[in-house]
Amino acid sequence: MSTNDRFDALATDFAPGQEVRQGEGNIRGLMRGDVIPGRLVDFSHGDVDAFTPTPGSFELFSEAVSAGGRQAYTEYRGSADIRAELADKLARFTGVPVNAEDGTILTPGTQGALFLAVAAVVNQGDKVAIVQPDYFANRKLVQFFGGQVMPVAMDYMASQADAGLDLAQLRAAFEAGAKVFLFSNPNNPTGAVYSEREIKQIAALAKEFGVTIIADQLYSRLRYEGESYTHMRAAGLPDDQVVTIMGPSKTESLSGYRLGVAFGSPRVIARMEKLQAIVTLRAPGYNQAVLRCWFSEPAGWMDERIRLHQAIRDDLMTIFSEGGFACRTSQAGSYVFPKLPPLAVDLHDFVKLLRHQANVIVTPGTEFGPHPHSVRLNFSQDHAAATDAVRRLVEMANRYRTN
Amino acid sequence: MSTNDRFDALATDFAPGQEVRQGEGNIRGLMRGDVIPGRLVDFSHGDVDAFTPTPGSFELFSEAVSAGGRQAYTEYRGSADIRAELADKLARFTGVPVNAEDGTILTPGTQGALFLAVAAVVNQGDKVAIVQPDYFANRKLVQFFGGQVMPVAMDYMASQADAGLDLAQLRAAFEAGAKVFLFSNPNNPTGAVYSEREIKQIAALAKEFGVTIIADQLYSRLRYEGESYTHMRAAGLPDDQVVTIMGPSKTESLSGYRLGVAFGSPRVIARMEKLQAIVTLRAPGYNQAVLRCWFSEPAGWMDERIRLHQAIRDDLMTIFSEGGFACRTSQAGSYVFPKLPPLAVDLHDFVKLLRHQANVIVTPGTEFGPHPHSVRLNFSQDHAAATDAVRRLVEMANRYRTN
Repeated sequence: MSTNDRFDALATDFAPGQEVRQGEGNIRGLMRGDVIPGRLVDFSHGDVDAFTPTPGSFELFSEAVSAGGRQAYTEYRGSADIRAELADKLARFTGVPVNAEDGTILTPGTQGALFLAVAAVVNQGDKVAIVQPDYFANRKLVQFFGGQVMPVAMDYMASQADAGLDLAQLRAAFEAGAKVFLFSNPNNPTGAVYSEREIKQIAALAKEFGVTIIADQLYSRLRYEGESYTHMRAAGLPDDQVVTIMGPSKTESLSGYRLGVAFGSPRVIARMEKLQAIVTLRAPGYNQAVLRCWFSEPAGWMDERIRLHQAIRDDLMTIFSEGGFACRTSQAGSYVFPKLPPLAVDLHDFVKLLRHQANVIVTPGTEFGPHPHSVRLNFSQDHAAATDAVRRLVEMANRYRTN
Repeated sequence: MSTNDRFDALATDFAPGQEVRQGEGNIRGLMRGDVIPGRLVDFSHGDVDAFTPTPGSFELFSEAVSAGGRQAYTEYRGSADIRAELADKLARFTGVPVNAEDGTILTPGTQGALFLAVAAVVNQGDKVAIVQPDYFANRKLVQFFGGQVMPVAMDYMASQADAGLDLAQLRAAFEAGAKVFLFSNPNNPTGAVYSEREIKQIAALAKEFGVTIIADQLYSRLRYEGESYTHMRAAGLPDDQVVTIMGPSKTESLSGYRLGVAFGSPRVIARMEKLQAIVTLRAPGYNQAVLRCWFSEPAGWMDERIRLHQAIRDDLMTIFSEGGFACRTSQAGSYVFPKLPPLAVDLHDFVKLLRHQANVIVTPGTEFGPHPHSVRLNFSQDHAAATDAVRRLVEMANRYRTN
């Protein structure tokens, strides 16, 4: 592939957070009716002013700066002390031991971990099974390293009991030679959680075909009432076949520190460290210290955070339902992925209109696969502002509906 | 190349900062004489406890955390406000305008900028001219993207008037099809600064052959008395042919925040941003704010920092000279690259012995190219500890000398 093609495939024009770089295009010509006034809500990411960072996080950063060189420079895979603390906590969380020395790496954000993990296992021509829909960077990462995406459908509207992964398609992808399966759980953008049955079947297939699994579990702590969760790494696969990626960036509103961690296969983690040495050297030294507050939040803090998010989710579901939008109930995390009614304008134009006319920013479904009728919302927002903005979204969809 | 080979080529076993991961190997069996006591000095990087971060840097970080979401999330290329401030300062520093909107990107460390810049211009099979010696990641980056390194020798011991780049070899590399020239100035590991004559000839050759230049100028602010400096981007090349990389990590002891900036060619910067979206998303949001103190240090602060480093450099040069080590006088930055006398042990063993027996950490010359008789020292250290450690290095070289 030429360098131009390689970078064209990375197009970020509609990626979350990049909206300010878009031109207005022909938006004014398409506008139906007046502006719908309301406070700007940017659903492309969570609002860390509405949900503030974990108590004590800044103090940990501040202590790290005072500690000086010891914390400014660490091994490329991150501070040994912090890895040791983290390995204990992650072992308790996932129910399986974590190797602090050889099976853990700290990265700049979970994005950093994803990039390194994919680079470590995907080479020119390698086939990689990717869920549709799933996190927008997954397929781009595979393509960037010259891999071939093997799409696996997820019928997330079929039932709340399963995520809806097409396991026959997954088997077919493995049979066709896919050597890696990369997926997010809870699923981004739908908030679907894979059932125990699904995780066990994925594990059985991966075992049968010797497939390496990269499980992006970024949101696996923010689980709503009554939802159970099965960790991929606890499903009986050999440790060397699974890498789990997490981070305190979302649920804990610590995104501004950009921290992630990958743990599991020592073979993959060793490669990730070698690559990190030329990508960013290490996760920022002082920032690493903020990981100490992760899984050590004040009693009740996380429960309250989950409760508040669930209340927003429930209100949004009601508004979607009244507005005729089909939407799976998010089981974990803070994403919803409603399907819009049939529109007379193209999805990208609608998303731009929404921003210019209604002060609402959402991410088009096309970022997550072939989903030209859906949009993703991160509802980790001020409750009243979010419900008001979603009412404007419904009104906009009605204005631009096909007649 | 197989994935294994690709990652073997990234070996970090002897990379600076990774010493703690080395086993002892057969070191005890090789030891001549007793331990030489002395305080540990880690010359693999600067000591941010000896030279502390820019006054006001932590306060800027702290304000950014208070600012909340506005600073936690920025465009992938970094906060527009901070880019605008920076573009002005970098234009003044380099003498050529900087395009804040389309020609500037903030990255996690200068390493992040280097990675993205090389990825943006080097594809499978592309030839890239690389200086020997030069920063250890340069050739690894080229190899990782499947490029072919075209070595260009630098005779850094020939004269202090020029860096000593073999311009005939550079022309030959360009004639053979090299499309990129990547180099550090001041040179890492020697501290050599390219003369105006050399920079102008590099520019003329790049123009003739349409070569893109990536100029890593990380240390270009820390210049010793009487040294002049010519910025690559001010040498008359079209703006679209040069990308300059800098950062406040070294001279200013802000490494713990991991910040870098690349500026120049909008074509290359646009690609870098697309790639950053899948590598790390963005430089950590809060950390970006620390860039506001860069080029805005208190009056006299930088002069004093330069004076203190120069004093260390001068003392080390005296000790090297008395010990029979050939060493170029560093003109800028805080690296020296002395050549050791002939040793009876292999360089990697000597470097390990030095650590175990004399509490001195240095980086072997082989990290920077085919230089098996040299070591690199970052002398941004406590003055007395550094001179004492270098005396131990000289004594160790005498013990392990060939008889």
